[in-house]
Amino acid sequence: MSDLEDVLRGVVGDQHVLVDEDLKAQYQTDWTRRFSGEARCVVRPADTAEVAAVVRACAEAGVAVTVQGGNTGLVGGGVPAGGEVLLSLGRLTSCEDVDVLEAQVTVGAGVTLERLQQHARPHGLDVGVDLAARSAATVGGLVATNAGGIRVVRYGSMREQVTGIEAVLADGSVVTRLVGLAKDNTGYDLAQLLAGSEGTLAIVTRVRLRLVPLLPARAVALVAVDGIGGALDLLAAARAGLPALAAAELFLSEGLDLVRAHGNLAAPFAEAHPAYVVLECAARTDPTDDLLEVLGECEAVRDATVASDVTGVAKLWAYRETHTEAISAAGVPVKLDVSVPLRELAGLVADLPGTVAAAAPGARPIIFGHLGEGNLHVNVLDAGAHAEEVTDAVLRLVASRRGSISSEHGVGRAKARWLPLSRSAAEVAAMRRIKTALDPAGLLNPGVLLSE
Amino acid sequence: MSDLEDVLRGVVGDQHVLVDEDLKAQYQTDWTRRFSGEARCVVRPADTAEVAAVVRACAEAGVAVTVQGGNTGLVGGGVPAGGEVLLSLGRLTSCEDVDVLEAQVTVGAGVTLERLQQHARPHGLDVGVDLAARSAATVGGLVATNAGGIRVVRYGSMREQVTGIEAVLADGSVVTRLVGLAKDNTGYDLAQLLAGSEGTLAIVTRVRLRLVPLLPARAVALVAVDGIGGALDLLAAARAGLPALAAAELFLSEGLDLVRAHGNLAAPFAEAHPAYVVLECAARTDPTDDLLEVLGECEAVRDATVASDVTGVAKLWAYRETHTEAISAAGVPVKLDVSVPLRELAGLVADLPGTVAAAAPGARPIIFGHLGEGNLHVNVLDAGAHAEEVTDAVLRLVASRRGSISSEHGVGRAKARWLPLSRSAAEVAAMRRIKTALDPAGLLNPGVLLSE
Repeated sequence: MSDLEDVLRGVVGDQHVLVDEDLKAQYQTDWTRRFSGEARCVVRPADTAEVAAVVRACAEAGVAVTVQGGNTGLVGGGVPAGGEVLLSLGRLTSCEDVDVLEAQVTVGAGVTLERLQQHARPHGLDVGVDLAARSAATVGGLVATNAGGIRVVRYGSMREQVTGIEAVLADGSVVTRLVGLAKDNTGYDLAQLLAGSEGTLAIVTRVRLRLVPLLPARAVALVAVDGIGGALDLLAAARAGLPALAAAELFLSEGLDLVRAHGNLAAPFAEAHPAYVVLECAARTDPTDDLLEVLGECEAVRDATVASDVTGVAKLWAYRETHTEAISAAGVPVKLDVSVPLRELAGLVADLPGTVAAAAPGARPIIFGHLGEGNLHVNVLDAGAHAEEVTDAVLRLVASRRGSISSEHGVGRAKARWLPLSRSAAEVAAMRRIKTALDPAGLLNPGVLLSE
Repeated sequence: MSDLEDVLRGVVGDQHVLVDEDLKAQYQTDWTRRFSGEARCVVRPADTAEVAAVVRACAEAGVAVTVQGGNTGLVGGGVPAGGEVLLSLGRLTSCEDVDVLEAQVTVGAGVTLERLQQHARPHGLDVGVDLAARSAATVGGLVATNAGGIRVVRYGSMREQVTGIEAVLADGSVVTRLVGLAKDNTGYDLAQLLAGSEGTLAIVTRVRLRLVPLLPARAVALVAVDGIGGALDLLAAARAGLPALAAAELFLSEGLDLVRAHGNLAAPFAEAHPAYVVLECAARTDPTDDLLEVLGECEAVRDATVASDVTGVAKLWAYRETHTEAISAAGVPVKLDVSVPLRELAGLVADLPGTVAAAAPGARPIIFGHLGEGNLHVNVLDAGAHAEEVTDAVLRLVASRRGSISSEHGVGRAKARWLPLSRSAAEVAAMRRIKTALDPAGLLNPGVLLSE
């Protein structure tokens, strides 16, 4: 064991090769506490050159590497299976000057989303993605997992923000493409191939990102609807009538009950309703009037409350945003992230309770998510010992409705065995050929995405 | 020779295997008439299954395949080097119903852009890309080359329109992914890998595309500016102040002179100016007032004329759109398609005449293109026997300014030997490994993109 560690110490310095159990511990378990694994050691390189040297050393020793960003993923993609070198990118925190002319910036993989937002906003620019884990989630992880979040309805996923990349391949060679040209048709788009590849093809060390205009004026509506059909009618009206639409989020009555009990929140409306939609508009000038007009004209609206001041906006968002916290407080949920075509969404939501109950009697699904993409976060409480059966049943249900078993969280280790539900044998075979071409020895993130 | 042709006839029918020279001729030379090559035969399959059977037959016979769409590319990517089976996708013209809920549609690779526009528009939807070759350019070719055009400033390149793909791999296996989910993180994004791969990794046979809102109200400004600096100031003002901005095109005084002489067009302004920008806004309601306001406030504007009626709009666009035709009428140009970061654009334009003159005394560059992406179409007239030297000199100049040697036309056969100017050895090596993984025998489009 000591040979490789000595080489690694030579690369990154003694204090950045962690072998003691208590120092390794925080890296070995993910945010959910559901996934953990023993790393041979934890290595914390400072820049791309050090990452490349670490990878070369591991390749020579024949030791696999697990790559970790902010460790906020929910599918076990950033923790080792056992015995790998755990490569943490947390020290790659360089932030280059914001290029206002091109509205782009180049940052290290270890920069957190929050830090990136703070970096861009003084220039009147903002990051196109946003999500609750912003204080810990890193740019490298966001790219590797093609993160989504609440702004996808307006700006697309992380993939759409990436204009260039620097990455270390499994042989230690470095691919650098950070000019960020808006058009460049000189061959395969390696940046787009690496986005969403979950660290299995290369280790992303620096990223060039497009930025979007900073939009300071916000208006938020919490809208009650009769069900998924009504929610989709409202979405269609919002898309057609609100160019400023920045988020369209969904939750159901069970989730509202849980959130209200956990946070001691007042009922948003006099009556209870089956489903709720949060619409946010963001613009340079107050978008409230447009929002009110669309709500006034949409027949699906059963009740609505609107806010545009900071406190009021936060209050309305709390009904949606505290779902994760309220669910965690109620137990250890099975967390599944799925999406279906919009026309299948009502059917999926209707079928979920029965499917869950059949797999785990007494279990209850709490559903919320991103309406615009048909993306549901299915959290199943009280599944007891039936977590695997619930997962299998829900993912099969999603696949039967032409959906994705992983919408925005990635496959990680957690869902690798279900990948064939969403991907054909020909697709998986093509993916394996690409994996083998770029990482013939299977050193990078073994067991993640493609099961062994 | 007859064995393979017999098998192919069995697959596609006698009348769709062309071996006579006069029947093959139209397929063997591209639109520019600069690139041509002898095909062993031309095969015209009717659907994905026939394409797969053709590829399997060619693979078994060890005969390479050149794939051809509308044959409107400008880099020799769709004509054979010599001896390949030329596979034309022109009969794959299926058009599925427009999915209005998701704003998507699935069509065959042989559907022309114009046909697709006609298919989408009755539903209040439109295609996100548009370009002059719309009546001949096909969806498959647009995807394979990641086509750009005049709408990229608003909607991005063809890559951004693709939500799903069906493709035949070099072993004849078929990858189908046409659900078009807005979010799907189940592994490598094969559709994005194939987009822009110029038929070297797989043959795209069907495509699912996002559609954009049909915007019937247009306003166009032809604006005179002092040079590239002024054009970029105007671009910045247009981007900041015109959410309806749909095109931002550039041309210079030499181009205007040529266009006016060719088309017998009146001078747009009383005085001549060094550079001109065409701005187009597209919206649901007339965007003229917003356009006038931005023009009125932008100090870079030297003169401007605005139109919003169909005739007036066409008249202003003619100054930009007839460049290609006017140049072709003046000679056989060396056509180069390049882009640089916006901050390099003025320097590139300043250096081009000297660089061209040094490579080919007496030659003259006519420059126009897509301002928003720093994308210039450099057409060099009167290069005489020095076409190769001009190409080499211009592409080296572009590379020295961190640019792309192929912005939106692809690399094809024409630029394969210059690829290392824009791509590092590590990138080219990674591309070759991917190519070998998916097409180990090198059957698909040999000599295109990656030189042999």
